[in-house]
Amino acid sequence: MENKGISSAVIKRLPRYYRYLSDLMNQGVERISSNELSSLMSVTASQIRQDLNNFGGFGQQGYGYNVEYLYGEIGKILCVDKKHNMVIIGGGNFGHALANYERFEQKGFVTRAIFDKDPEKVGGDVRGIPILDIAQLPAYLKEHGVQIGVLTIPKLEAQEITDILVAGGVKAIWNFAHLDLKVPDDVLVENVHLSESLMQLSYRLGEQK
Amino acid sequence: MENKGISSAVIKRLPRYYRYLSDLMNQGVERISSNELSSLMSVTASQIRQDLNNFGGFGQQGYGYNVEYLYGEIGKILCVDKKHNMVIIGGGNFGHALANYERFEQKGFVTRAIFDKDPEKVGGDVRGIPILDIAQLPAYLKEHGVQIGVLTIPKLEAQEITDILVAGGVKAIWNFAHLDLKVPDDVLVENVHLSESLMQLSYRLGEQK
Repeated sequence: MENKGISSAVIKRLPRYYRYLSDLMNQGVERISSNELSSLMSVTASQIRQDLNNFGGFGQQGYGYNVEYLYGEIGKILCVDKKHNMVIIGGGNFGHALANYERFEQKGFVTRAIFDKDPEKVGGDVRGIPILDIAQLPAYLKEHGVQIGVLTIPKLEAQEITDILVAGGVKAIWNFAHLDLKVPDDVLVENVHLSESLMQLSYRLGEQK
Repeated sequence: MENKGISSAVIKRLPRYYRYLSDLMNQGVERISSNELSSLMSVTASQIRQDLNNFGGFGQQGYGYNVEYLYGEIGKILCVDKKHNMVIIGGGNFGHALANYERFEQKGFVTRAIFDKDPEKVGGDVRGIPILDIAQLPAYLKEHGVQIGVLTIPKLEAQEITDILVAGGVKAIWNFAHLDLKVPDDVLVENVHLSESLMQLSYRLGEQK
């Protein structure tokens, strides 16, 4: 499969296709035309065809898409058919909430451990996922293959912990801390800056008035 | 001030400027050139000048930007100088985490109440913010002016609650539920789909190999 040179706009849309196809499968739908998918998702049918053509198509003219097949193929493109080991840094409410999302696991994102510096939290667990002392993080990373580090800690500590994750071989950081992390070129960062999302909403609220 | 026709790409970048200016203020920096800001934020100086020119500039050739003034002006554009009342629907870990973010309040986003259907949660509070019975939501909205509803509930319940929020006059929904909401044209939705963010990370991890 040829994935090179796919625009980031297409990549951003793929998880949404994946979600709709998952819903359709759950509803027992076996086949769907690009027109039906188009009206369901409020995007044009030609957009859908173009997006999926980036990966070789998947549809037969006049027959539409096989829902389960397309779901599987998009899953492969998104690499959710593989297991990724995650550690969550920060055992507060937010870290707990993320560790509790069983849906992540179903998509191959398996949280192996949560790290915190608070002695009252260390030794506990969330759904059997142990909460370990942050001091153990370097040794843990050496022993376990961890691909993704999730940062749910205050911004002042985020860069220091990032450096430890990177030194321990982590190749992707899912960053909820409110700063831009410095990482080597071969380490990916996906930011979820909640305040910034909220400010976009308030901007648009202000614009409407 | 003329905000019409500003591209959404610019709007998405404004909160990041706002964050950097806030950090600079905290460090006691009074004035910064677009070149300095450029190297700090890893965007080109011409991008910065272009972005800020959308709102009339704010800089003097050769003198750079007054940090506090620019911070204040961007804050006005983002409407964070105004108070917005929010309610959080869902008193789980995620709702708790959001209610605990004091930073939202500092930006004018004030959580007035949390709603849940679990009798064990109802009657409690988070930092003094009451957790109320979801059955009280329509009456609450009638009595209190609420601008923003935050959804941290499972997708199956999200549309029903959205309809109640919209009927109660809420004009913006910050949606963490994993579906696309149906709302009237004058109601804004800002989605935070965490699984989709994670899938983009795994796609990029797969692409790197």
